[in-house]
Amino acid sequence: MQYVEGYENLVELVEHGDAEGLKAALNAMPSADVAEYLDEHFEVYNTLALMEMMEPQQQAEVFGYLRPTHQQEVASHMELSLLAQLFRDMSSDERADVYALLDLKLQDALMRRLARSEREDLLRLVSYEEGVVGSVMTSDYATIPVGCTVEQALKKLRQSAPEKETIYQVYVVDAQHKLAGVVSLRQLLTATPHEQIDDLMTVDVVSVNPDMPKSEAARIISRYDLIAIPAVTNDNLLVGMVTFDDAMDVVEEEDTDTMHKSATVGKLEASLRDASPRTLYSKRINWLVLLVFVNIFSGAAIAYYEDTIMAYGTLLFFLPLLIASGGNSGSQTATLVIRAIATGDIGKGDVLKLFAKELLVCFSLGLSMAAAVMVVAYFRAPEIMLVIGLSMLSIVMIGSLVGLLLPFLLKRLGWDPATASTPLVTTIADATGVMVYFSIATAILGLALG
Amino acid sequence: MQYVEGYENLVELVEHGDAEGLKAALNAMPSADVAEYLDEHFEVYNTLALMEMMEPQQQAEVFGYLRPTHQQEVASHMELSLLAQLFRDMSSDERADVYALLDLKLQDALMRRLARSEREDLLRLVSYEEGVVGSVMTSDYATIPVGCTVEQALKKLRQSAPEKETIYQVYVVDAQHKLAGVVSLRQLLTATPHEQIDDLMTVDVVSVNPDMPKSEAARIISRYDLIAIPAVTNDNLLVGMVTFDDAMDVVEEEDTDTMHKSATVGKLEASLRDASPRTLYSKRINWLVLLVFVNIFSGAAIAYYEDTIMAYGTLLFFLPLLIASGGNSGSQTATLVIRAIATGDIGKGDVLKLFAKELLVCFSLGLSMAAAVMVVAYFRAPEIMLVIGLSMLSIVMIGSLVGLLLPFLLKRLGWDPATASTPLVTTIADATGVMVYFSIATAILGLALG
Repeated sequence: MQYVEGYENLVELVEHGDAEGLKAALNAMPSADVAEYLDEHFEVYNTLALMEMMEPQQQAEVFGYLRPTHQQEVASHMELSLLAQLFRDMSSDERADVYALLDLKLQDALMRRLARSEREDLLRLVSYEEGVVGSVMTSDYATIPVGCTVEQALKKLRQSAPEKETIYQVYVVDAQHKLAGVVSLRQLLTATPHEQIDDLMTVDVVSVNPDMPKSEAARIISRYDLIAIPAVTNDNLLVGMVTFDDAMDVVEEEDTDTMHKSATVGKLEASLRDASPRTLYSKRINWLVLLVFVNIFSGAAIAYYEDTIMAYGTLLFFLPLLIASGGNSGSQTATLVIRAIATGDIGKGDVLKLFAKELLVCFSLGLSMAAAVMVVAYFRAPEIMLVIGLSMLSIVMIGSLVGLLLPFLLKRLGWDPATASTPLVTTIADATGVMVYFSIATAILGLALG
Repeated sequence: MQYVEGYENLVELVEHGDAEGLKAALNAMPSADVAEYLDEHFEVYNTLALMEMMEPQQQAEVFGYLRPTHQQEVASHMELSLLAQLFRDMSSDERADVYALLDLKLQDALMRRLARSEREDLLRLVSYEEGVVGSVMTSDYATIPVGCTVEQALKKLRQSAPEKETIYQVYVVDAQHKLAGVVSLRQLLTATPHEQIDDLMTVDVVSVNPDMPKSEAARIISRYDLIAIPAVTNDNLLVGMVTFDDAMDVVEEEDTDTMHKSATVGKLEASLRDASPRTLYSKRINWLVLLVFVNIFSGAAIAYYEDTIMAYGTLLFFLPLLIASGGNSGSQTATLVIRAIATGDIGKGDVLKLFAKELLVCFSLGLSMAAAVMVVAYFRAPEIMLVIGLSMLSIVMIGSLVGLLLPFLLKRLGWDPATASTPLVTTIADATGVMVYFSIATAILGLALG
């Protein structure tokens, strides 16, 4: 089946009342697809009815994929015993995410239905704050004890496989549950049955700490091409595991935040579709108003040169294109630098080399654009050709320098470099551009008027 | 070992001439880290000497992680027989990537050293164009024949494991190498030895086509949380596999492109660090010059209203902040919409709802900003307070609408929505903003002058 071909339409099956076909389709479809259908087409009661037709494992997976708002609604309308069963079947990290969405009363009722070990696990996972490794890690990792043989390890994996999120990375733990090493299922499968795990395992395990930023764990997983990474405390106690699919979600979320930041939109907890108008407003208004006040500098600069402008009204014609060019080339540079810092493409030693290269590039860009705009000036106002050309070159170079230095400056100050958003760079470039343009004009034209 | 603790410093070991320690360190370190050290600290000849100290598998992995420019240099200075051996040890997709970097003479010499099957595989993989699934897929996938038992399957996997990129997803193929189904190693391990693969395997395999865009394969892998996805031709012939780590790289690359595009920077083949000044220039100049000419409209609009401006010079003070606000709110909206389209957060049915929500948000933003700017006007030029407030509201709403509609329009035209870059949205918002501002000013002040 090619992904693009799509599936039978659940909505149609529901409308035709074909219970058997519906049941078969629900259980055969990938759970991510079922969840999307439910999110798009079905209200709470329909979703509940359809979920009852699924096998427990499929039910738990589909529920885990539902949109948070939908999860919340479904959970609060579900019979408590069924919800508790669903919770038991879910993976520990998704369970913790859903639990955090419920109201206190429901959380409490649910807790009382869980076994003690599940309860403790859940409480531990929900205790981590948003954004750290602990908030995305699962406790459904596979372990084997130090000192066992390959045969014993395989036997244990076979038995515990159904509850584990992955059995492809297996953590070797001592009696205190400290991480002693890691073996892959591939290694176990190709080893001889009586080989000792202690001889086989990798002792230098790449691991993370549950209090690290989750984005860091994601970058490590991506860097080393890992299926999963163990989370250990400072005294090497194994407390969780982050899998590659969680890492992918983290990277996507982080990239969304960075892109939004590049346009001065604050961090959205929900998707654009789910975000309320009120939230969207509050994530956008602060920077917009702040930038208005920064733009007053541009206005003040224009007002300061009002005499020059009144004498040479034609200078105004060129104002937008000169000013915008500084902002545009600045935002190009800033975006290149911010992304390179985020992906680790720029190290410490590279700044000077980068600076020299950027200067060369900007100078060439400035010259080309000066040439382009001088052609326009030749036809419109040949007497200010030189002013326009010189201004363009200066403004493009200044804009690019702002775009280059601002991200590094912010980083030095401990801020996210992405705060050097396009609007901020543009605004700074605008204000300096106005001053540069009119001071060049005043100097050159003042001289010519002499 | 926590990632942050770092490793022994290879550079130091090299300086101390500690051959044994160096050899041990090189083979124990994760290959991604060794490659980074070599990239940062060592020239070609040093790299060659150090690579000779590594075991073949580590050598192949480290080489695969090196920066392309470094790979190219190392390969062209390597003895041909060693390079051929290295090629044999590399995974098929990385081999194809490196091969494409070499000059024709070296490609030719290398080809003649490879066995026929390797040669054919290599030629097939390099034949796919950049950007499609075929260019990132590997042929080192694990297969088992239809009709075999679990026991036979496990035996085959054990034998073939060393050459395979993953054995956690196993493809079941018929005599024509058509894909009949997929089983996971987890399934195989928990099944009974005499169970038939045909009963166990999943028949509805989520697969991709080698000619699909690679970004689509990455999104599918991420959506279904897959370790690997098979690539099949239209007649269901299994030709390759894309693994989750390649998907992560694809997502990162795509996101980099989108971010660059958001600032009108063209697609960079190399990283910012490796890109030549000439390349950077050529990826930036086109849009910069194009936008200069679009900005002429703003200039023309200002020139058109020169009389109004000369009569009310103080209008100029407010020009930058009004104009910039339209661009800023427009770029916020455009970025939100572009990212939501890219991550699949907006479907077809959502456009109208989104439109209504955005109108509400923009109206509120516009009102707040009008209020803010009218306070400024009250102190600076109370006679044009109304002009400024009305203009702000209109400009913010128009800017947001441009940011909302442009991505959808571009998508409809078959372009990448990300082409609605911040500079483009800003430029369009600028030109309309100038016209709106001065026509409101002319109307209201003209009336007042009446």
